[in-house]
Amino acid sequence: MINMKKTKQEKINNSVGIVETQYFTFAEPGNEFKFESGDALGPITLAYETYGRLNPDKSNAILVLHALSGDAHAAGVRGEQDDAGWWDDMIGPGKAFDTKRYFIICSNVIGGCKGSTGPSSVNPETGKPYALDFPFITVADMVHAQRRLIDHFGIDKLLCVAGGSMGGMQALQWAASYPDRVKSAIPIATTLKHSPQQIAFNEVIRQSIMADPAWRDGNYYGHGQPEKGLSVARMIGHITFMSDQSMEEKFSRRLKNDTFSFGFEADFEVEGYLRYRGANFVKRFDANSYLYITKAIDYFDLSGGRLIPHGRDIDTRFLIISFKSDWLYPSYQQQEIVRALKRRRVDATYCELTSAYGHDAFLIEAEEQTTLIKHFLDKTFNGYLVADRHGN
Amino acid sequence: MINMKKTKQEKINNSVGIVETQYFTFAEPGNEFKFESGDALGPITLAYETYGRLNPDKSNAILVLHALSGDAHAAGVRGEQDDAGWWDDMIGPGKAFDTKRYFIICSNVIGGCKGSTGPSSVNPETGKPYALDFPFITVADMVHAQRRLIDHFGIDKLLCVAGGSMGGMQALQWAASYPDRVKSAIPIATTLKHSPQQIAFNEVIRQSIMADPAWRDGNYYGHGQPEKGLSVARMIGHITFMSDQSMEEKFSRRLKNDTFSFGFEADFEVEGYLRYRGANFVKRFDANSYLYITKAIDYFDLSGGRLIPHGRDIDTRFLIISFKSDWLYPSYQQQEIVRALKRRRVDATYCELTSAYGHDAFLIEAEEQTTLIKHFLDKTFNGYLVADRHGN
Repeated sequence: MINMKKTKQEKINNSVGIVETQYFTFAEPGNEFKFESGDALGPITLAYETYGRLNPDKSNAILVLHALSGDAHAAGVRGEQDDAGWWDDMIGPGKAFDTKRYFIICSNVIGGCKGSTGPSSVNPETGKPYALDFPFITVADMVHAQRRLIDHFGIDKLLCVAGGSMGGMQALQWAASYPDRVKSAIPIATTLKHSPQQIAFNEVIRQSIMADPAWRDGNYYGHGQPEKGLSVARMIGHITFMSDQSMEEKFSRRLKNDTFSFGFEADFEVEGYLRYRGANFVKRFDANSYLYITKAIDYFDLSGGRLIPHGRDIDTRFLIISFKSDWLYPSYQQQEIVRALKRRRVDATYCELTSAYGHDAFLIEAEEQTTLIKHFLDKTFNGYLVADRHGN
Repeated sequence: MINMKKTKQEKINNSVGIVETQYFTFAEPGNEFKFESGDALGPITLAYETYGRLNPDKSNAILVLHALSGDAHAAGVRGEQDDAGWWDDMIGPGKAFDTKRYFIICSNVIGGCKGSTGPSSVNPETGKPYALDFPFITVADMVHAQRRLIDHFGIDKLLCVAGGSMGGMQALQWAASYPDRVKSAIPIATTLKHSPQQIAFNEVIRQSIMADPAWRDGNYYGHGQPEKGLSVARMIGHITFMSDQSMEEKFSRRLKNDTFSFGFEADFEVEGYLRYRGANFVKRFDANSYLYITKAIDYFDLSGGRLIPHGRDIDTRFLIISFKSDWLYPSYQQQEIVRALKRRRVDATYCELTSAYGHDAFLIEAEEQTTLIKHFLDKTFNGYLVADRHGN
């Protein structure tokens, strides 16, 4: 949002520069990737980008994890396009995730539609997209696939895993599944488990997609997306990403035209905005991936002691960030993460920021997040080096 | 909800008893009803019910106003069915709206589908339902139509107009349009104007209906409702009526079956509940009426001094009630009503109740509302009689 009015050159100047999405393929036939559902599939491709340089002892790698409809393009500007990455304000030289010091990896999730293997990928056995034959995915599956990418880089221990919303869930899942491979974690605007209200919003999103006859039980490839259902689904999402206050500031009750239509046109600017965002989403995101990923989020549950396996100590450090106006992932959920960690004597710092931007704040509020994250990473990285020196 | 497990006889015993919906028709051809849009239409029928007895000087009449999907059946039990009225806990002998003292009228709104003339009514000129040829409606149109019903009863001044949500908007509109005919008003869980967030939810509801090909540009009569779109629309509504806390208490993350489906079935109870409520709504509410009424609500705006016409004093007394967990109509909106009244030195009492039920609280929290309303009406009624004696 902050970058909307910048030219391509301005974006490049203030960022990691021109970047290119790369692809990592693993789990070749005979060595398929095992999903939590019990299904197995291979090969699997993950799209990813990297920024900065991996140092010789591979101790400066940070895995940045994206949210529901995000992708591998977290920073910089891609050659063909002029779209700054979704966390470009946070990743770059001198930024929160400082590419002069750290090596940043951002990987698209398995099940996604941005270059990684998912429902819209072609099944090599049939020559057709998997559609609903694609195995059901979980947040743990996303993380297990990413682990293969981290192995590929030869990184034993990530300096940090960080992300907001579903990215935060992945960060928590990394700490839960691979505590020895994560020096620190920064879960932002996220939760140990979806509340029934959060599940309810996702269920309405799914029902909206599946209600569209153009969805064709998932077999719409070659016919075009279930545009109307997917568009309505995204409109619901957008409302939950913003706050009452940020909508008031952005739209108030301003009309699109001078007078009321006395009909079902978009009278208010907010209606036009939602319709635009809905229609735009159809062009960039696969409906089946939306179904799969929302369900993965709903299933996610690291409450009840599952965040830290019973009977073991972990030395992962945590920085947990919440936003006061985020009513989709309210602060009490981030505080539950802190309590779960503190109960197990894990090093956890918590901060609630006072942004008015609602859930979107994790994408927008760069300045305050930067202060927190820069300091936290600095301490983690230096502490890491010191411990490393003493240890050897 | 509270009545769900009672037998029909128990419901009758604790209520105004067996009731019957009645119909009032006005605006015969040549004397059509004028809509705010400029359109005119007649005849118009309003469905209504009454409880208690109108006293000889017609000073004990209370008009109860329903919410978006409500109807004229506010109390008692209808002969053929066994459904208690939507405010049965509030209207009856000894209840908040005490039928031993007061004469209660509840009228379905113009544009509705519960016996009043609306888009699903047959146009006598064509022999077919009006569909989108029905004039656009506003909250003021609803109130102007109700005024005709009140005229029909020969009631000069209503003791009170009362309602929650859209019912509260009508109460405010009554005070604004007919200050001389309203002794008091009880707007509950309502607002002077929809915020962009509230408009946004309504817009998604409308888009969901209109996205369904079965909607057929409104001409679905004879083909069946746009079931899927209307069902999703209602699911969205239901989420906004409840609170995060009430959903947690009612559903938490309980599963419908023992295990996850690893598919797109309803895994969680909350998903099954929403699907059920959506499907149920399709059976009882007309999709076009839902479009018309949500738009009327979005247009409603008595802010900026419009609640009380400039330069005039009004002696209407107000009791404004809000609920702490209502995030659809947050308390700040009811406080804006209070401020608008106090600025004009109008007698206004405000109370925020601490219910966890969210917006639904105005339908559920009978006890605390009763305490407030009983006392308020008592003072209004007795004050009215005294003033009347002195005045004559």
